[in-house]
Amino acid sequence: MNLKIKYYLELIRVKNCLTASFGTIIGGLIASNFNFGLIGYILLASLIVFLVCGFGNALNDIQDIEIDKINKPNRPLPSNKISLKSATIFSYLLMISGIIISLFNMICFAIALINSIVLYLYAKKYKRNKIIGNLIVAYLTGSIFIFGGASVGNVEITLILFLCALFATWSREIIKDYEDLDGDKSEGVISLPIKYGKNSIFVAIGFLLCSILLSPLPYILGMFGAPYLMAIMICNVLFILAVLKLLKNPSKEIAGSSSKYIKIIMNLVLLSFVIGSLM
Amino acid sequence: MNLKIKYYLELIRVKNCLTASFGTIIGGLIASNFNFGLIGYILLASLIVFLVCGFGNALNDIQDIEIDKINKPNRPLPSNKISLKSATIFSYLLMISGIIISLFNMICFAIALINSIVLYLYAKKYKRNKIIGNLIVAYLTGSIFIFGGASVGNVEITLILFLCALFATWSREIIKDYEDLDGDKSEGVISLPIKYGKNSIFVAIGFLLCSILLSPLPYILGMFGAPYLMAIMICNVLFILAVLKLLKNPSKEIAGSSSKYIKIIMNLVLLSFVIGSLM
Repeated sequence: MNLKIKYYLELIRVKNCLTASFGTIIGGLIASNFNFGLIGYILLASLIVFLVCGFGNALNDIQDIEIDKINKPNRPLPSNKISLKSATIFSYLLMISGIIISLFNMICFAIALINSIVLYLYAKKYKRNKIIGNLIVAYLTGSIFIFGGASVGNVEITLILFLCALFATWSREIIKDYEDLDGDKSEGVISLPIKYGKNSIFVAIGFLLCSILLSPLPYILGMFGAPYLMAIMICNVLFILAVLKLLKNPSKEIAGSSSKYIKIIMNLVLLSFVIGSLM
Repeated sequence: MNLKIKYYLELIRVKNCLTASFGTIIGGLIASNFNFGLIGYILLASLIVFLVCGFGNALNDIQDIEIDKINKPNRPLPSNKISLKSATIFSYLLMISGIIISLFNMICFAIALINSIVLYLYAKKYKRNKIIGNLIVAYLTGSIFIFGGASVGNVEITLILFLCALFATWSREIIKDYEDLDGDKSEGVISLPIKYGKNSIFVAIGFLLCSILLSPLPYILGMFGAPYLMAIMICNVLFILAVLKLLKNPSKEIAGSSSKYIKIIMNLVLLSFVIGSLM
């Protein structure tokens, strides 16, 4: 029995779900100025994110069962550790329970419902068309923060965090696609770099500039003070350095290191929001 | 009987629905390079947009029935030309028929479903909280174009149009709120300018800059040629002039003229996309 649980945790990619839940908690804490009196709502929101995220991940494995028989034969589904029927029922149970719990808050309910639809579309269709898939991943990543903010009744600051995260993630996904160009091509996947070559780097840069452009808004609106502005400006300088490096030498290797570098800076951006909320 | 139809057309704000449908047709034509062989799908998509838009508008009147008894007593609901029950049934019939028709295309179905949820949220809650309401209006405006693109199986170019329209509309809505500051205050509505004063102008400018920044992408990606680039650059110069004028003198009067001016430029941006698609 314990082994079965392990397989189900593997199916939903529990680490990935926990990361998303953690993002929701951070979003909720930022939006409530670290008012731990509201932690109950925030934890409820992070549970919903865990469930809906688990639904999406399980659905992806269900969709990929045939490909995984060759590529990842040890995953719970192709190795028959979990039957396809059980996995399907389980994944929809996760989604339904997530949506039911979200009824405590209208925005959370709407986002849980919309994200479930989007995750379904992603698994069924857009994982193999990364041009749209990238936007979906970016939207889902950003929405985690709004979800936390909504649970404590303050979406404003998380709305800016949502936009910054959306554009930075979108940018990073395109740069990752540039790195994975050959692999994607051989698998028949469509991506921006496959279709538009090196010019897709400019799209990634455009999105990153949008993220940079919107990042001072919490300071301009007086939500956060000078410590935030200083922290976020350091992040923006680092972003620009990453972009310049990639522009100078748009090779797959640099794309790979840039994408890792951007991921680190994105975590620093999140830290800047925490600093802004605390100081 | 004919009179009844007139009242129902008034309830759904038929002109507004037709404008949205027209946007879908333009989006579809741009995405199909004016391939009139696909006009059937495009017209179907524009019908769905008409129905879902009508649902949203009717729902707004249903929600506002008490306020309209004082402010707009001649509207179909407060004047009892249509009963509340009939209006409610009618509006949900519009939504359901729109969603059912959209089943011909998975993306159209997802967008119709998501937009119905968003329109419901808007009518019930966010019309009076314009900070979120502005984003909803901006998203809905932009989504019209993707809807047209999706109906002909090419969302890529309309995705850029979606982002440009979203940010330009969001910017314009904030500037409009700045103009309507006193009226909104007296009605107890929340808006960015009410909460953050003149600094909200910087948010509007930030969003407009995002729109400007993303606008050359169709040229950079080789979707459109030099005529598009020239047309869109003229639009961007006009946008910047509008912003500079507002920055120089951020008064309510200038906000009013800027918002009208931005609306005209937004139509020129749409025209630039048409030029790009045709030339």
